[in-house]
Amino acid sequence: MREDFHDELARVNSSLVAMAKAVREAMRQASVALLTGDYPLAQRVAAQDAQVDVLYRLVDERVLQLIARQQPVADDLRSVLTALQAAADLERMGDLAVHIARAALRRHPSIAVSPELVDLFQAMSTVADQLAAKIVVALSDRDEVLAAQLDADDDAMDQLHRRLFQVMLDPEWPLGVEAAVDGALLGRYYERYADHAVNVGRHILFLVIGKADS
Amino acid sequence: MREDFHDELARVNSSLVAMAKAVREAMRQASVALLTGDYPLAQRVAAQDAQVDVLYRLVDERVLQLIARQQPVADDLRSVLTALQAAADLERMGDLAVHIARAALRRHPSIAVSPELVDLFQAMSTVADQLAAKIVVALSDRDEVLAAQLDADDDAMDQLHRRLFQVMLDPEWPLGVEAAVDGALLGRYYERYADHAVNVGRHILFLVIGKADS
Repeated sequence: MREDFHDELARVNSSLVAMAKAVREAMRQASVALLTGDYPLAQRVAAQDAQVDVLYRLVDERVLQLIARQQPVADDLRSVLTALQAAADLERMGDLAVHIARAALRRHPSIAVSPELVDLFQAMSTVADQLAAKIVVALSDRDEVLAAQLDADDDAMDQLHRRLFQVMLDPEWPLGVEAAVDGALLGRYYERYADHAVNVGRHILFLVIGKADS
Repeated sequence: MREDFHDELARVNSSLVAMAKAVREAMRQASVALLTGDYPLAQRVAAQDAQVDVLYRLVDERVLQLIARQQPVADDLRSVLTALQAAADLERMGDLAVHIARAALRRHPSIAVSPELVDLFQAMSTVADQLAAKIVVALSDRDEVLAAQLDADDDAMDQLHRRLFQVMLDPEWPLGVEAAVDGALLGRYYERYADHAVNVGRHILFLVIGKADS
């Protein structure tokens, strides 16, 4: 019975790994599309989100089957339910990558990010990718040390997000309202992507070592 | 056994009702604080969010106990897990009310909403309140007709959100970048609040009548 429980939990985990890889790739591609104005790439990001949704339903289904078959209680039950929360956060990360891709589509053939903000958004996309990469490894290797780092890693995103608003609200800001509105929303999408990555890190801690998910 | 299951599910539901009432009140107060620049009220919204978090943990705890004690399977299990998703959406609605309250605090003693946008944000806050009010009744009365209406009701918010961007991106827009950045983010908070309300409506359908949560 216990062997079965851990086998089934491992299968749930493998679907989470697949989700994490997909939402990492989605954000990488969305960021490239945003910064280079690559219309077909942005379209691809939007279309591929359906795969993340399929994986989400797979996690959901596997968790339900696991609970019904194994009837876990206490910490085991909590671990299993944590997988559902991680899947929900990953699904949302995929949605945010799509929002970024859509911003690229909306401004085509212009580039949605004004030249003054390219470096900042390049840096935000790098942090987002590092967070997602860490989630993939932490889930794959059940590495609680990596998972625990995500919270601190997010500080880099918060700093970039604050810097973004300083730049846009500077009286010297040379651009108009549209560029600032785009900047504010895009900044929010990257920040939220990172917030969800931190949540996933907390869920992994619980999945791996049963540590309190505070 | 079945009686116990439904009793326990009713207790979970009553905690969801309490959450829904709390996040409705939070958004009402946050909107008043935003539109009138009421600093103490905005502070109160931020402080009271802890109560929503307590209720969220209570739902979580009750769901865990219910599963462990009753070991539901199939549709019963899905219903119970749906309560967790509804709680997560409600918790997020509370957070979004806090974001709006914080915008009011940040711009004090100015008012974060520029005069050109007051009517639009008043309308958005009215729609948000109607959605939250409908959630409270749908949960309390297990009313699937009301729950099913939320999806269509959200169209009003989407229209207001589109109108907001039309106004801000109009070449005649008389105000500066800061007002537009605030407008974009505030609009996003109201829109997301409504999105989560729609999610809750879908979860209620499943909780009440076991209808597919697509």
